Amino acid sequence: MSNEELFVATSVKNWSIVIDRLEKAVSAFSDNDLQLEVSPGRNRVYYLVGHLAALHDRMFPLLGLGERLQAELDGPFVNLPDRASVDISPAADLRRFMFEIHARIREGLGAMSPEDFLRRHADVSEADFQKDPTRNRLAVLQNRTAHAAFHTGQIRLALKK
Amino acid sequence: MSNEELFVATSVKNWSIVIDRLEKAVSAFSDNDLQLEVSPGRNRVYYLVGHLAALHDRMFPLLGLGERLQAELDGPFVNLPDRASVDISPAADLRRFMFEIHARIREGLGAMSPEDFLRRHADVSEADFQKDPTRNRLAVLQNRTAHAAFHTGQIRLALKK
Repeated sequence: MSNEELFVATSVKNWSIVIDRLEKAVSAFSDNDLQLEVSPGRNRVYYLVGHLAALHDRMFPLLGLGERLQAELDGPFVNLPDRASVDISPAADLRRFMFEIHARIREGLGAMSPEDFLRRHADVSEADFQKDPTRNRLAVLQNRTAHAAFHTGQIRLALKK
Repeated sequence: MSNEELFVATSVKNWSIVIDRLEKAVSAFSDNDLQLEVSPGRNRVYYLVGHLAALHDRMFPLLGLGERLQAELDGPFVNLPDRASVDISPAADLRRFMFEIHARIREGLGAMSPEDFLRRHADVSEADFQKDPTRNRLAVLQNRTAHAAFHTGQIRLALKK
């Protein structure tokens, strides 16, 4: 493996570890228990599953991996806070969306070259990217890895001890 | 910047963003409020500050950055769960330890070459590293970044809305 391939393999592995832990935590809830709050008065696990599914779905265009699968999640799970809209997605569907999105991201990451990871991501302009070349696709992957870990820490609090 | 330098700069930046958010969250508590639990019956923020300080302090030998600053944190904050020992460190000291450790890690990371990041970390044997070269120092940095984000998500829940 070249050094560049090793940098990528290490980052992709870290994403996979975090996503595996997230999926394991989410799988430990019954559909009904997804309604639990992570702490009194805070987000429901249901909301965080939708939120993470939506944010990860947005990685497809950001990383140049094609079209999104579930753009309709943005309204209730990104643009609005928890309980600001009626729950239109059954919990079982939300969970399935998340797992499907993760499986497709894994495929997409596996097909990216080291050079691909250093290209600008789709939300930064060519001019801004010239000024700061760390605004690349690897940064998106690492940012989303940390974001997934952030909410996994919360979701785990709703699990019965 | 070479491609290898860019991979490193992107990863170090992600660590810095996560640590800045952690420090900002921890700074928002009074010394007394560090005693708050992140959720009823769960870890106190105080414990998580000690836990993160200890784990980050362990990064010095793992990354080849020299001696630890606060090895005595391991007993109460890594080997034992919250409330299993008497709180010997005042909250203000714990917080200061964490910030000092972070400042020193930042210096250390800045002095590492891309090749340094791909060397084996101190907790993996040469034989195991040959089998899996992603068990390198970059993996330690990325693992600790995700771990810090995981607990930051919990600490934020104890902040008054």
